[in-house]
Amino acid sequence: MTASRVVLFAKRPTGAPTADCFEMREVELPPPAKGEVQVRNLWMSVDPYMRGRMFDLGPSYASAFKLGEPLSGRAVGQVVASKSAGFQEGDFVFSDLGWREAFNADPEVHPLRKLNLRGLPPEAFLGVAGITGLTAWVGLLKLTGLRAGETVLVTAAAGAVGSVACQIAKLKGCKVIGSAGGPTKTQALLEQLGVDAAVDYQAHSGRLTEAFQHAAPDGIDVCLENVGGEHLEAAINVARRYARFALCGMISQYNRISEPYPVRNLIMICGKELRIDGYLVGSYEDCLDEFLDEVCQWYNNGSIRSVETKFLGLEEAPAAFMGLFSGENLGKAVVGLA
Amino acid sequence: MTASRVVLFAKRPTGAPTADCFEMREVELPPPAKGEVQVRNLWMSVDPYMRGRMFDLGPSYASAFKLGEPLSGRAVGQVVASKSAGFQEGDFVFSDLGWREAFNADPEVHPLRKLNLRGLPPEAFLGVAGITGLTAWVGLLKLTGLRAGETVLVTAAAGAVGSVACQIAKLKGCKVIGSAGGPTKTQALLEQLGVDAAVDYQAHSGRLTEAFQHAAPDGIDVCLENVGGEHLEAAINVARRYARFALCGMISQYNRISEPYPVRNLIMICGKELRIDGYLVGSYEDCLDEFLDEVCQWYNNGSIRSVETKFLGLEEAPAAFMGLFSGENLGKAVVGLA
Repeated sequence: MTASRVVLFAKRPTGAPTADCFEMREVELPPPAKGEVQVRNLWMSVDPYMRGRMFDLGPSYASAFKLGEPLSGRAVGQVVASKSAGFQEGDFVFSDLGWREAFNADPEVHPLRKLNLRGLPPEAFLGVAGITGLTAWVGLLKLTGLRAGETVLVTAAAGAVGSVACQIAKLKGCKVIGSAGGPTKTQALLEQLGVDAAVDYQAHSGRLTEAFQHAAPDGIDVCLENVGGEHLEAAINVARRYARFALCGMISQYNRISEPYPVRNLIMICGKELRIDGYLVGSYEDCLDEFLDEVCQWYNNGSIRSVETKFLGLEEAPAAFMGLFSGENLGKAVVGLA
Repeated sequence: MTASRVVLFAKRPTGAPTADCFEMREVELPPPAKGEVQVRNLWMSVDPYMRGRMFDLGPSYASAFKLGEPLSGRAVGQVVASKSAGFQEGDFVFSDLGWREAFNADPEVHPLRKLNLRGLPPEAFLGVAGITGLTAWVGLLKLTGLRAGETVLVTAAAGAVGSVACQIAKLKGCKVIGSAGGPTKTQALLEQLGVDAAVDYQAHSGRLTEAFQHAAPDGIDVCLENVGGEHLEAAINVARRYARFALCGMISQYNRISEPYPVRNLIMICGKELRIDGYLVGSYEDCLDEFLDEVCQWYNNGSIRSVETKFLGLEEAPAAFMGLFSGENLGKAVVGLA
């Protein structure tokens, strides 16, 4: 028997999630049965979409978490014992069985993807080469059709998606404006991600339009937006004619229990002939191989980096998740489990 | 000399335009000079975008009207005297010199388009075969990529753009829901335009989402939206996954002098992966020939009709224009000038 700890969904949050929404339990795993593999997780991901799965009612991003059951989410692990023909001990695997240290699973029943690291560290496949990287790549390259010389605004630019988006836009020859909360993060945008201008939205609350205008006096051509509310409104205000927006989230709105922020300038969508594409990265999984080829090449030739906030130990996973909403993490938040 | 009456822009409206914003004056036209034609207008158009041109400040749809100067807008007329090699007496011409009964113009300096009626009445080129028809055609066929079997919501469906959009969507094999204000107009949608369901938004103010849901229980795939405010919010509420919106105006918002309606459900753009395209028909003038070929064929084989509210006499033009905002007109409002 193998000991593994697992985090259960203990209480539905009202507003921002709190520590008492999570409960750690220790379980014993039997050796894998015929057809199964046993995987020890190396890294797990915490992501904003998980907040949506904590609601009881209404359509959300994915099926709802059940109270008293283990949470789940993306993880990278390594096979420690295999009774499945397709997997060998030592194989790296990608699964949606995060929030636990180890698990047994039958790959015929539960999707496990074998991972070719191609020289990248395993945790990169939860960030720059993972779903958040894919989100940035799809939004900019498949939806907005980014062109060299354009001005690109990335909101939540120090976040998991934004930190990759800034780098892709720079790689493609664009001028990049990034917004983030606080001087530490805006400094990181300038120093670690090479953006051309950084806007500290905390210092410009209620005056974001002016701050964006100052950073992009000729307006923006493209916006990768995942904050919503005042950020979206200000981005529309500074959009040039025919600007394209890719919206992959609205993190400022997820925890709101009262009225959402009322965006009041939508008439500009007509007058400026804007295109706004909302998307969920799950609809673009057929792009994964193309994305991985490109991003691994960029990573290995040094033209893109992985920006991560690392938490160590499963007991830190709730704090890592809560940090997504308090804006404390820089880049992708990952939790080391081994 | 030829007598012609012309309407001047007398006062900027605050909120909805009023009769005192207009002033009629009589002018004498000399015979056309060398290179000029003299045109007697047959029909002129009144359109919501003209309200935007009455503002003093800020970017709008087109350049601003000047106080004390003649208003302008689309018109169809006939050449009554020509000293231009390209035009003959009797030619039908399309110009932007409406709001007057006759004019002299040099086609080398001022754009006049010779009009081949192809069996249609001249005023149809201000409506179903005009810019408002093109607006509906571009929105549905070039932007949303309408497919047979889809459910289409057309807002302001009894209006100039909407009345064409409903018919195009039916022609293409779609289920069509139209919204309009009041029982007379919703009845006209059902009887004259063949929509599958009509929603009277006046009878459902504050409960538009429920009304749309009732009309389209499985949701909508496509929306041609030109009202804004609560209409846009409700349309987003009933949108299916991957629904496409074409926004060509927000007539509910043009006259607002206080805060615009706050749309609060934009987070659904992400979750439902909506595509929203704002557009101005002026950007699609290269589609005009393709559109005219198609719409004239539809008109002549009886599969599309022109729905018009006709005003007679230039003195009625202000009332026709004001009727755009009070929702009194059915279909395209045109003013007969001869």
